[in-house]
Amino acid sequence: MSPFSVVLVEPRYEGNIGSVARVMKNFGFKKLVLVKPADLGGEAKAKAMHAQDLLENARVVDSFRDIERGFDFLAGTTSETGTDKNHLRNPVFPEELVNALDSGGEIALVFGREDYGLLNEELKACDLLVTIPASREYPTMNLAVSVAVILYEISRQRTRKEYRGLKKFQKADRIEKNVLLDRYSDLVDSVYDQDFNRRLAKKTFKQLMGRAFISGREAFNLAGVFRKASERKRR
Amino acid sequence: MSPFSVVLVEPRYEGNIGSVARVMKNFGFKKLVLVKPADLGGEAKAKAMHAQDLLENARVVDSFRDIERGFDFLAGTTSETGTDKNHLRNPVFPEELVNALDSGGEIALVFGREDYGLLNEELKACDLLVTIPASREYPTMNLAVSVAVILYEISRQRTRKEYRGLKKFQKADRIEKNVLLDRYSDLVDSVYDQDFNRRLAKKTFKQLMGRAFISGREAFNLAGVFRKASERKRR
Repeated sequence: MSPFSVVLVEPRYEGNIGSVARVMKNFGFKKLVLVKPADLGGEAKAKAMHAQDLLENARVVDSFRDIERGFDFLAGTTSETGTDKNHLRNPVFPEELVNALDSGGEIALVFGREDYGLLNEELKACDLLVTIPASREYPTMNLAVSVAVILYEISRQRTRKEYRGLKKFQKADRIEKNVLLDRYSDLVDSVYDQDFNRRLAKKTFKQLMGRAFISGREAFNLAGVFRKASERKRR
Repeated sequence: MSPFSVVLVEPRYEGNIGSVARVMKNFGFKKLVLVKPADLGGEAKAKAMHAQDLLENARVVDSFRDIERGFDFLAGTTSETGTDKNHLRNPVFPEELVNALDSGGEIALVFGREDYGLLNEELKACDLLVTIPASREYPTMNLAVSVAVILYEISRQRTRKEYRGLKKFQKADRIEKNVLLDRYSDLVDSVYDQDFNRRLAKKTFKQLMGRAFISGREAFNLAGVFRKASERKRR
């Protein structure tokens, strides 16, 4: 079970609550906690789309105190960087969050009101503050967008290994790549006589393939073209 | 000036367009392009909040063709991973987009319709596909949320130090790329007689080049090999 809950403090618009539920489900998060929320009606449901279950299972509490008591670690979000009354707090960026959260226990990702964010008292209660880097000109994000960025960042980092595994599966392995490079070399040798030209052409292609995220299928396909081209040349 | 434009293809709900404008302004992006959008009225304005200027300055075009012509690099977004009809495409994850950051050309970040996403033909026209890793159970994100994740990721990486190391790399522009693709097509035509083989070989190479972040120099070098190979064939 994921240690993360998304906590919305006094969300004023039910539509935002629905949108947050959808975002959570998109990124595979399940536990939604609402502190004195707006009433949930048709708009919340409409915005939640296929995340009705998250809305229905949302835990509603009366006060921020319940959050302080109910979690091992509180990560509060703020858009107030630098300004500011909370000059003693150094918020971290989302990508730094994950390391900080390796604590074990139940973790609350706490998002404030649409207009005022979190109150000073609530910010103080948080173990850590996180801020999404944004334009100074207009840093105030929609609630669901802030939640999305934080959840994206957490899932990006937590599942990096899985991504790599997936990539590996799709990507050409070393043998497939070497076959491709060999076929290309044959082609180059068949069109250039000068050693310098040959070396440059091979080096270029090798470097390019190093960056190309080529799949096994693609490597096979390309190698086929090169093989045919250089075979027919030899006749 | 930032090289990035956000392109929404046939967005059906004006509210989504407004939300995207807000997200763009949050992350400091300015150029919004709309392909056959819904009419912009009060709801778009309401959702855009303090990003009215982006809505007002949005460029509206009639067809996807205008996008193909107007940009040097098209990064298309898709939620279809692995499954699928486009088995030749390996979408990259948002964090891998960093390679596209220093292209020197105009880059379109292309987002599809709320319901159907991008059509196959549009996907094919893209140089690169990006997919946001999401829960298999419910991967379909709100349009503004998808845009937010991509823009967050780009701005996160742009501020990184490693990014400076890529500065030297001068990417191939559209013309250099087209020359390379043409030379490859000639080569393919000279080795394959069957239409099916030809089409598959060309499609594979085009997709590969879209992901390869090829430099102008590399494209020139490779095109030279292909040209020589197919010329000598014809004798």
